[in-house]
Amino acid sequence: MRFTSLTSSDGVTEQLFTLGEIPGVLWTPEGAPGPRPLILMGHGGGQHKKAPGVLARAHRFVTEGGFAVAAIDAPNHGERPKNEELDRIATEHQARIAAGEDTATLVAALQALAARQAVPEWQAVLTALQELGQVGAGPVGYWGVSMGCGLGVPLVAAEPRVGAAVLGLQGSPALAEAATRITVPVRFLVQWDDERVPRAHSLALFEAFASAEKTMHASPGKHGDLPRSEAEDTLRFFTRHLG
Amino acid sequence: MRFTSLTSSDGVTEQLFTLGEIPGVLWTPEGAPGPRPLILMGHGGGQHKKAPGVLARAHRFVTEGGFAVAAIDAPNHGERPKNEELDRIATEHQARIAAGEDTATLVAALQALAARQAVPEWQAVLTALQELGQVGAGPVGYWGVSMGCGLGVPLVAAEPRVGAAVLGLQGSPALAEAATRITVPVRFLVQWDDERVPRAHSLALFEAFASAEKTMHASPGKHGDLPRSEAEDTLRFFTRHLG
Repeated sequence: MRFTSLTSSDGVTEQLFTLGEIPGVLWTPEGAPGPRPLILMGHGGGQHKKAPGVLARAHRFVTEGGFAVAAIDAPNHGERPKNEELDRIATEHQARIAAGEDTATLVAALQALAARQAVPEWQAVLTALQELGQVGAGPVGYWGVSMGCGLGVPLVAAEPRVGAAVLGLQGSPALAEAATRITVPVRFLVQWDDERVPRAHSLALFEAFASAEKTMHASPGKHGDLPRSEAEDTLRFFTRHLG
Repeated sequence: MRFTSLTSSDGVTEQLFTLGEIPGVLWTPEGAPGPRPLILMGHGGGQHKKAPGVLARAHRFVTEGGFAVAAIDAPNHGERPKNEELDRIATEHQARIAAGEDTATLVAALQALAARQAVPEWQAVLTALQELGQVGAGPVGYWGVSMGCGLGVPLVAAEPRVGAAVLGLQGSPALAEAATRITVPVRFLVQWDDERVPRAHSLALFEAFASAEKTMHASPGKHGDLPRSEAEDTLRFFTRHLG
């Protein structure tokens, strides 16, 4: 893991890094060298590791929760080179959404391809982060909705170090099998009028998690309208399960 | 409103009262005479104004949120005289639940009868409570699940002084019309494996609320298994909307 920059603002230290070809960022409380719980944050489709929503949530989790937070560019996103196959599917996906078509099969194909690459990448990044003094080998959580859930479900299913997860805005039936292998506490966020995720698919994915402790929070509004209060609630969710 | 006893423990002052024939209880922070937001708490079927769940939640809301909390015995419950018609229906209801039968029609009849009496009772109690120095005419919330939701939906629909409500563990289609007249923020609690409320009924009742701000929290488990963390979340819900 190679660090390429270090800056601090508003009590948060931000370190950009690369691990092999994976560009990432680590946020920790400024001037706090000891170990602390870590939250891995997966961004949405078309976004990147420092998208405004990721950045705002990371700052909040660091300053109010004392967590370390890390994000990486998902395959084919941010500073990553374009993968031609992923890119072709993503372009087709955007065109079909714009045309109001059903894109479930495409999304499933896209996510399966991306997950095959993203899961081992997250696992390698996690291993490297846990060797840092300001992170350590303590509790780990995962936060990701929409594409961040599409990649997060296979990650959380595969990675025993992740002890709690916030997921949602996703209902791809292709994720159900991995969901049945998840047993850690899950907070699942649903937008009741999501124009991209059929409501029945969201409910079915929530149903599929094997976790004894799982809660679905559903709010009115479309895919992009997740209420701010849900961000506050997820901070408390992680404090409860990783604190 | 006639006060019949005053005791204090653990920082909470408890005053028993009667208003006409309605027995009730008011909890406020000990030694805090000024006005504060008020939460009306409706108990579940077969319970009463000081049932253990009501008492525990009230103490928490008073000590951690600084609220005033009031509960009354619902018609045919607690210290109230038995109403023969309600009693006959309730007895039949319990027998049918025990026999595993569908009790939706009975529940609807029972709740409609009870609500016709309970709504004006709550309104009269609210008016009297707001004249007290330790309550005042500030913001008012309502908390009630199961039967407390069955009576709460018509109350919140009818009573403009209630500014936010926690409801749930109920899905009677007979409540839908009143739900469409509710526009204040609503937190709606659902048990995913509720043996008394069909899941589709719960989702339909959530759908029916006209509130722009409403959130459904669904957790695995049966009617009686509401997780403790939901009680914590409802305290923050009221703090956000009544604070």
